[in-house]
Amino acid sequence: MKPRIAMVLGDPAGIGPELVARLLAEPQARSAAEVLLIADREEFERGCGVAKVRIPEGEIELREWRGAYGAFTRAEATANGGRYSLDTLDAALEATSKGTTDAVVFGPLNKAALHRAGMRHADELHWFAERLGHRGPVCEFNVLDGLWTSRVTSHVALKEVAGLITQERVIEAIALIDRALRASGVAQPRIAVCGLNPHLGDGGAFGREELDIIGPAVERARQLGHPAAGPFSADTIFIKARDGAFDAVVTMYHDQGQIALKLMGFHRGVTVQGGLPIPITTPAHGTAFDIAGRGAADVGAMRRAFELACRMAKAG
Amino acid sequence: MKPRIAMVLGDPAGIGPELVARLLAEPQARSAAEVLLIADREEFERGCGVAKVRIPEGEIELREWRGAYGAFTRAEATANGGRYSLDTLDAALEATSKGTTDAVVFGPLNKAALHRAGMRHADELHWFAERLGHRGPVCEFNVLDGLWTSRVTSHVALKEVAGLITQERVIEAIALIDRALRASGVAQPRIAVCGLNPHLGDGGAFGREELDIIGPAVERARQLGHPAAGPFSADTIFIKARDGAFDAVVTMYHDQGQIALKLMGFHRGVTVQGGLPIPITTPAHGTAFDIAGRGAADVGAMRRAFELACRMAKAG
Repeated sequence: MKPRIAMVLGDPAGIGPELVARLLAEPQARSAAEVLLIADREEFERGCGVAKVRIPEGEIELREWRGAYGAFTRAEATANGGRYSLDTLDAALEATSKGTTDAVVFGPLNKAALHRAGMRHADELHWFAERLGHRGPVCEFNVLDGLWTSRVTSHVALKEVAGLITQERVIEAIALIDRALRASGVAQPRIAVCGLNPHLGDGGAFGREELDIIGPAVERARQLGHPAAGPFSADTIFIKARDGAFDAVVTMYHDQGQIALKLMGFHRGVTVQGGLPIPITTPAHGTAFDIAGRGAADVGAMRRAFELACRMAKAG
Repeated sequence: MKPRIAMVLGDPAGIGPELVARLLAEPQARSAAEVLLIADREEFERGCGVAKVRIPEGEIELREWRGAYGAFTRAEATANGGRYSLDTLDAALEATSKGTTDAVVFGPLNKAALHRAGMRHADELHWFAERLGHRGPVCEFNVLDGLWTSRVTSHVALKEVAGLITQERVIEAIALIDRALRASGVAQPRIAVCGLNPHLGDGGAFGREELDIIGPAVERARQLGHPAAGPFSADTIFIKARDGAFDAVVTMYHDQGQIALKLMGFHRGVTVQGGLPIPITTPAHGTAFDIAGRGAADVGAMRRAFELACRMAKAG
């Protein structure tokens, strides 16, 4: 049976509509899944026009979404665009929660627009968790060419990071990414865990977190059945991971993983909203206001987000 | 006039001797500089044998260095190898300090061997500073494909980093790399300065160092005549720098730069001992005991270290 994917355009001011149009114009994408597109028809058709594509009649299901948004502004973060983004996402979550669809794929959102529309959460991941009534741990995963990364801490000041690294949090991050990888079809994920300090603290000379917290957490995670290894020095593990030695890298802080991932090919990356009861994916890049509406946006990450959602829908 | 370069093999247990041999067998290298090689003749000839090269008689000046070291152990960190490394380096520093040569290039050292040989300093950079009677600030620079990086903090625990970021230190790091770049022949260096927190702290939401310390430091450095810009988000600045937008990136902590540089091509990197009164360069890679003596080591970084020393010798 084909996976059924609920899709939304993301922020209409950005490159989301043209990317969704370009993706759904690919016969391979349409044959890989049954697509339920929840979108304002005009916005989608506008996206098709920008991408210079036509979707054959009846090949996807379009659930028209119209609200009292007024005209959408282009290439700008507005409450209007944010409200439309959240409303369509809400409909996609509902369709997937009740089993009409198996997974959600969304076009790039604009955080400022979401906040202007009244979202109180720091990011969409926590908004998703609340809308889905999910109280367990959540974590954003970044996926690039089959390599998954997650982080124990995220949007916190660097000076707060060390104090937030606990055995519990490290084990939780390992368990979350292990489950997500299995849900995406990797039977026995190979998970590398980063250290915190340069050269792993060089045996305690500059930092003891590897010895006192991260090492024991990796050991405990293994006892719990999660195939984790490490800690590894952050400045060399991504070379090995890129070369295929691991399926995932668990990082301790935001830039530890993001510096590496963005260098390795940001435009190809996918973000997975991890820990939630349903698979949700999106391209890792943003709304790209600077090129929106020009038809120049690369569909690669959107295609990968879609393919990954299909795999997770099937395996789950 | 050709630059005069003092060269030493580095640790004889590692790949240094074969790399120096391979480099000096290249006619282009020999024609670029007058080379004074300070080395144990047997060790150098052994390196030539491993590299399967012959250096034509009289093309380089070999100053034979013999001490009471006993036989050298291979592929192992020993006090013997460390002592030989330090003694030959000492001779190279002396030759350059008194003007016989203009710059020093050394083969890979092994830190454990140096410590076994009695070096009390954390690294060779501080040992160099002491031997040269230099009391000013010093900083290790990493150079990759023309992109220089330095760091405000280095081998310290991550939890200590934020407390060590001061305006004075940031300005000093900018000034040091500016001077070194000019000494290497870059007339008006374009210097990018990293922030500390993810997304530069997002306007103070998670971390204020960009607003309170780094931003003002960049501003002050510019007033002092250093062409610095920033702070920039650490997870995107290396993409721009790799694409040629900057000559240097000043990072706030070790892994911020090392994650990026190692991914971009560790085997090609060069380390510059920055801040010292004479140019000193070396390949960024280590002694590579796992492949030493097999003739398989890549000479690329050693060649680049040599070329950079020649440029710095000329400009200085």
